[in-house]
Amino acid sequence: MAGLTDNANAGAGRTVISVDAMGSDRGPATVVAGIDRSARKNPDIGFILHGPRDELERLVERRKSLRDRCEIRHAPDVVSMEDKPSQVARNGKGTSMWSALESVREGEADVCVSCGNTGALMMLSVLRLRKLPGVNRPAIAVLWPARSEQEFNIMLDVGADIRADENDLLQYALMGASYARNGMEIAHPRVGLLNVGTEEHKGRAELKLAHDLIAENAENANFDFVGFVEGSDIPGDTADVIVTDGFTGNIAIKTGEGTAKLIGALLREAFKFSPLSRLAALLALTSLRRLNKRIDPRRVNGGVFLGLNGTVVKSHGSADATGVSAAVKLAFKLGRSSFSEKLAARVASAVRVPQDDETSADSNGTTK
Amino acid sequence: MAGLTDNANAGAGRTVISVDAMGSDRGPATVVAGIDRSARKNPDIGFILHGPRDELERLVERRKSLRDRCEIRHAPDVVSMEDKPSQVARNGKGTSMWSALESVREGEADVCVSCGNTGALMMLSVLRLRKLPGVNRPAIAVLWPARSEQEFNIMLDVGADIRADENDLLQYALMGASYARNGMEIAHPRVGLLNVGTEEHKGRAELKLAHDLIAENAENANFDFVGFVEGSDIPGDTADVIVTDGFTGNIAIKTGEGTAKLIGALLREAFKFSPLSRLAALLALTSLRRLNKRIDPRRVNGGVFLGLNGTVVKSHGSADATGVSAAVKLAFKLGRSSFSEKLAARVASAVRVPQDDETSADSNGTTK
Repeated sequence: MAGLTDNANAGAGRTVISVDAMGSDRGPATVVAGIDRSARKNPDIGFILHGPRDELERLVERRKSLRDRCEIRHAPDVVSMEDKPSQVARNGKGTSMWSALESVREGEADVCVSCGNTGALMMLSVLRLRKLPGVNRPAIAVLWPARSEQEFNIMLDVGADIRADENDLLQYALMGASYARNGMEIAHPRVGLLNVGTEEHKGRAELKLAHDLIAENAENANFDFVGFVEGSDIPGDTADVIVTDGFTGNIAIKTGEGTAKLIGALLREAFKFSPLSRLAALLALTSLRRLNKRIDPRRVNGGVFLGLNGTVVKSHGSADATGVSAAVKLAFKLGRSSFSEKLAARVASAVRVPQDDETSADSNGTTK
Repeated sequence: MAGLTDNANAGAGRTVISVDAMGSDRGPATVVAGIDRSARKNPDIGFILHGPRDELERLVERRKSLRDRCEIRHAPDVVSMEDKPSQVARNGKGTSMWSALESVREGEADVCVSCGNTGALMMLSVLRLRKLPGVNRPAIAVLWPARSEQEFNIMLDVGADIRADENDLLQYALMGASYARNGMEIAHPRVGLLNVGTEEHKGRAELKLAHDLIAENAENANFDFVGFVEGSDIPGDTADVIVTDGFTGNIAIKTGEGTAKLIGALLREAFKFSPLSRLAALLALTSLRRLNKRIDPRRVNGGVFLGLNGTVVKSHGSADATGVSAAVKLAFKLGRSSFSEKLAARVASAVRVPQDDETSADSNGTTK
């Protein structure tokens, strides 16, 4: 048993993901089923799994593809969805969430994945991984179904912090663009700043300041600043990265999610209305499934915590095995591309005034 | 010709709506078709129509049901969608929008309806009708498709102003509740304050202050305060009235609209995919139309400007005759119920500290 799971080779030549096995609404069996799915698809992935050893060993034992690829770290306690972040920060040392972050902190794993309590995970992440130099407020970035080529846009912050001044918004732009390049393979991402109108004179004072700061840094940081965007651009094709404060971002995604759910519920009702509509629904099943797949949040499961020394992927608490596997896939992609290091370098380079940057000062550091 | 349209009896026993015939994307013919539709359904409605006399006379002449019910007021100029509000405020005296507001200001009409430029309409409304005593920032309230019994929730402010302090938010709660009673016949509306979580300690400082202020005024103002609500509650069944600042409200509705449009577009694509799905779409036509009707913005066309001496209904610029007719129906309902007067009384009564209110101080003025 020990040979099967306590495998010191989990990381040999592989990208290692540190996984919090607990805290999911569906329990650790779903998490293990999810990482097993990823392991079967991807030979270059390894896991360190955190939680109660006996329970996890029993679950991992049955999965052939996890053999030699999944090390178990015993953590007896679990952070529940009801636990207050501040309590977890004080007393959470024995939890699987704490342990999972520890593997990233120690450099054993590249990225941490957890389905647990968002507030507690953010607080522990800041506490244990610490903020990147130059970052004042870390951010949570999510993917949102959109008309753009990659079918999803990135939005940040969606709730790590309810405030953001112009410097925070600049950091979000830099971090979001870096995430778009490394997580979604968009070489030259379009970045937009969320506002109530696209005219430059509109909106709050910090937004006007942020507009100019981001514009100044765009060329140097290799993204295309499209200026102010509106709520309708979040699911649109104007920008790949939507920058906003955590209060507005949280309201926007929850409104969008609620609206999508309402339409889904009404669609189901509409199709149940008469025998003819029931027949139509039957015939339309494939079409509706195709639509569902296109906007399925499980396909892009994972908010990413940005601005820390290490990357944390927050999976939905209610994610099934498909959802967990999607979060692991994103974590792998970010780990493999050395996203954390690139992000740190990007943020560090932008803290300087653009003119001071050696790579661009001579040719174009002052032209934008 | 003069006898047909310049009818001094437009208001005899009727609720008179002042209509800006110009400024719609579809032109005055659509506006006249819309009010004609309302006139045919409702014998108790009368109109004062503002715009270039010759053009309007020609349009109204053809409509039998508008005979003796529609007075035309000549206004040679038109506010375009591109005009800056401040310019319109300075030079807009000859416009149909200005003239339409003037009828409400003079007491000839109960409510004004316009499809024109929102910013200009708001600025002219504040300038000509003036704010109600006790109201610092007027608000725009819209209806949003929702799971609640009445199938739509009210949200305000959605963009009249980008700021709102705790007192403004209290005014929005009072005005929204009054609108719910008079415009949607909800006797005891549930009012929620939009935030990033439902716990009382969450959110910005002004939201916590507003929470307590609104709670104190709820009983006196005859609404049920459900506390903080989230973005997902805007299309939900938790509150009938969602209170927020104009920045957040604008972002939320535009995100929701964008998401609904994206789903609609993807649904159409999904149904076009194969011959079978095309057949399904044909059979599902009635179901899809039923859904479309349920969330059709034309059914509830009209943002309402609240907090002024007089009510202004802003119809979508792209509204067709059905949309214009829906805006007129809402305007009629509000005019018939003496909404403006009730709203003024409601706001005036809440400006006092609840304990000072004679009607409730003895029995329960301090219990809530």
